Amino acid sequence: MSSARQMFTFDGNFRMYRAGKLQSPTLAYESWGELNTAKDNAVLIFGGLSPSAHAASSAGDSSPGWWEEMIGSGLPIDTDKFFVICVNSLGSCFGSTGAASLDPETGKRYRLTFPILTLEDVAESALLVVEHLGIDCLHTVVGCSMGGMSGLGYCVRHPDAVKRFLSISSATRALPFSIAVRSLQREMIRSDAKWKQGNYDPDDPPVTGQRLARKLGMMTYRSAEEWAQRFGRERATDITGTDHQFVAEFSVESYLENHAVKFSSAFDANCYLYLSHASDLFDLAEHGGSLAAGFERLKLERVVVIGVRTDTLYPPVQQRELADGFSSICSDTQLIELDCIRGHDSFLVEMDAFRPVIREFFESCSD
Amino acid sequence: MSSARQMFTFDGNFRMYRAGKLQSPTLAYESWGELNTAKDNAVLIFGGLSPSAHAASSAGDSSPGWWEEMIGSGLPIDTDKFFVICVNSLGSCFGSTGAASLDPETGKRYRLTFPILTLEDVAESALLVVEHLGIDCLHTVVGCSMGGMSGLGYCVRHPDAVKRFLSISSATRALPFSIAVRSLQREMIRSDAKWKQGNYDPDDPPVTGQRLARKLGMMTYRSAEEWAQRFGRERATDITGTDHQFVAEFSVESYLENHAVKFSSAFDANCYLYLSHASDLFDLAEHGGSLAAGFERLKLERVVVIGVRTDTLYPPVQQRELADGFSSICSDTQLIELDCIRGHDSFLVEMDAFRPVIREFFESCSD
Repeated sequence: MSSARQMFTFDGNFRMYRAGKLQSPTLAYESWGELNTAKDNAVLIFGGLSPSAHAASSAGDSSPGWWEEMIGSGLPIDTDKFFVICVNSLGSCFGSTGAASLDPETGKRYRLTFPILTLEDVAESALLVVEHLGIDCLHTVVGCSMGGMSGLGYCVRHPDAVKRFLSISSATRALPFSIAVRSLQREMIRSDAKWKQGNYDPDDPPVTGQRLARKLGMMTYRSAEEWAQRFGRERATDITGTDHQFVAEFSVESYLENHAVKFSSAFDANCYLYLSHASDLFDLAEHGGSLAAGFERLKLERVVVIGVRTDTLYPPVQQRELADGFSSICSDTQLIELDCIRGHDSFLVEMDAFRPVIREFFESCSD
Repeated sequence: MSSARQMFTFDGNFRMYRAGKLQSPTLAYESWGELNTAKDNAVLIFGGLSPSAHAASSAGDSSPGWWEEMIGSGLPIDTDKFFVICVNSLGSCFGSTGAASLDPETGKRYRLTFPILTLEDVAESALLVVEHLGIDCLHTVVGCSMGGMSGLGYCVRHPDAVKRFLSISSATRALPFSIAVRSLQREMIRSDAKWKQGNYDPDDPPVTGQRLARKLGMMTYRSAEEWAQRFGRERATDITGTDHQFVAEFSVESYLENHAVKFSSAFDANCYLYLSHASDLFDLAEHGGSLAAGFERLKLERVVVIGVRTDTLYPPVQQRELADGFSSICSDTQLIELDCIRGHDSFLVEMDAFRPVIREFFESCSD
């Protein structure tokens, strides 16, 4: 399979927001469309915790991306008009430098010697890519889920480098319920004997802990309402190797098992821990001393905040908080609460609901 | 510490609802107040998954019970008027026979040779205690959480043995979200190497898995709204022995850790698995072929269904389903949705909200 992935390596020491540095980190990114001569049509997409930079297919890589139906010629984020960039988050494991990468100073994997990761670091490293591409000011930052907080980090530290913001199922900072979920997910991984304080064999990683963590993730990514409609109390038919009564017997259990097995083999456990922790740490209020002060640092001429009624991880109350905050600095702020039943993940799976509102955002500001 | 616990041992084989039998099982129970001569003032309380029969203090045991503020002289379940019984569920580990008990046939602990447990078995074994006490017909069955389903099992199989039903934060059957939560809790315990397929050393049980499971439980017993108010993004001050960045740093993490450690040492892991699985299995629709048919089998002259707005484990939609079903067979059915923020556990901790409605129930039907 060919790849459209491009690599940018920063020549020098990248100072981390909290403490420490990375020597010559690499950022993997993909882009679609063309930068215009005015260089004012660039859209930067910050994804959630899990995805790679492969948000959509292209000539270089025909495999479907994680937002395939959203980005492309004639699609809501129209690559005939916009130059679209997606960077694999710093700290992730799909090409960008993270805990699974080799530390050039030691020639060994960073593992837990990787410095504390914050979403400010994710933002700052994406800025390096944007600058490398010769762009001074982005037309729009799109931030989905964790990526919305990374995007806020980008805008609050570089207010002149972004004109518009599209926040999707995100927040100003994590509430304790989300912190509790992620903390428990991390504990599941750390409790797996194979984790070995982060020094696991790459060929024998802590997949049990990762599988458990992913299942808990799925419970917060989707919704009880969706599952009630979709599974009810239907029994599973594909369960094999049941050795006793406590193994899955309902369809919902088999669904979770299948999803979790797929994910666990794809994502590095330590990278997951770092990105999960970074999601807990981010707080717009740290930029100025309060949420209001954080918002005041922003300069944006248009903001749309989209949330979903059934989202329990980034619930509607947090969407309203975002919209209220943006309103204080940008009169052209709009809050859209979608009536999707697939919870937090709706922006990835309820495309019929999301496409029109995202199309509307870009059409109305590309006149 | 003295105990008010009484033990009843059934003389014979107790046939389990699904399959198998228990030889001479023991049921632990407590009672408060006096049975009147008409024997028509008995109230049977079915508790949730975790509690013992010690619902309230008494002359024999002055330690506070799990519903201390609800049961007693002059309290909402008034022991000056009612004879109140609480049985430790069959399958539990606080005196009643369960997977941690010795199998009289082998002289060894049952462990996973314990037959599949259902809430019908919990109900049927409680009936043995009620009959042993010389009671033909209960004034009221009170069922909290899982206990509400046990209570439904009691009423549907012995419709002439109960006059009134008080359902608290319960359901007709589990929805897939709750099944997913409990399935993952069981998997956490089973994934702990110390579980050893159920054959753990009683002095070295799978406490890591149990601790993880309890934390997930807490997330569904309380509410995101409560935690946002209570903890916000407050940092923990009591964290010790932190060896790296992924250990708890927020107050909500420290709160969960403290709760989970306490619970894990108190509850037997296998008993937990059995009761958790029983909660998934119960379905009123199995009694008659549909929910409507299940309800039709009931004979009740008064029903009150109480639920809580922020309950995610037994959500409001399930309270309405219960009330609608009861209404079809009992014109004196009332649904009360309380605006508590502590989620599913509100009936244990928001006493100011629950006391008046439970007092009203008993006062109005003891005239």
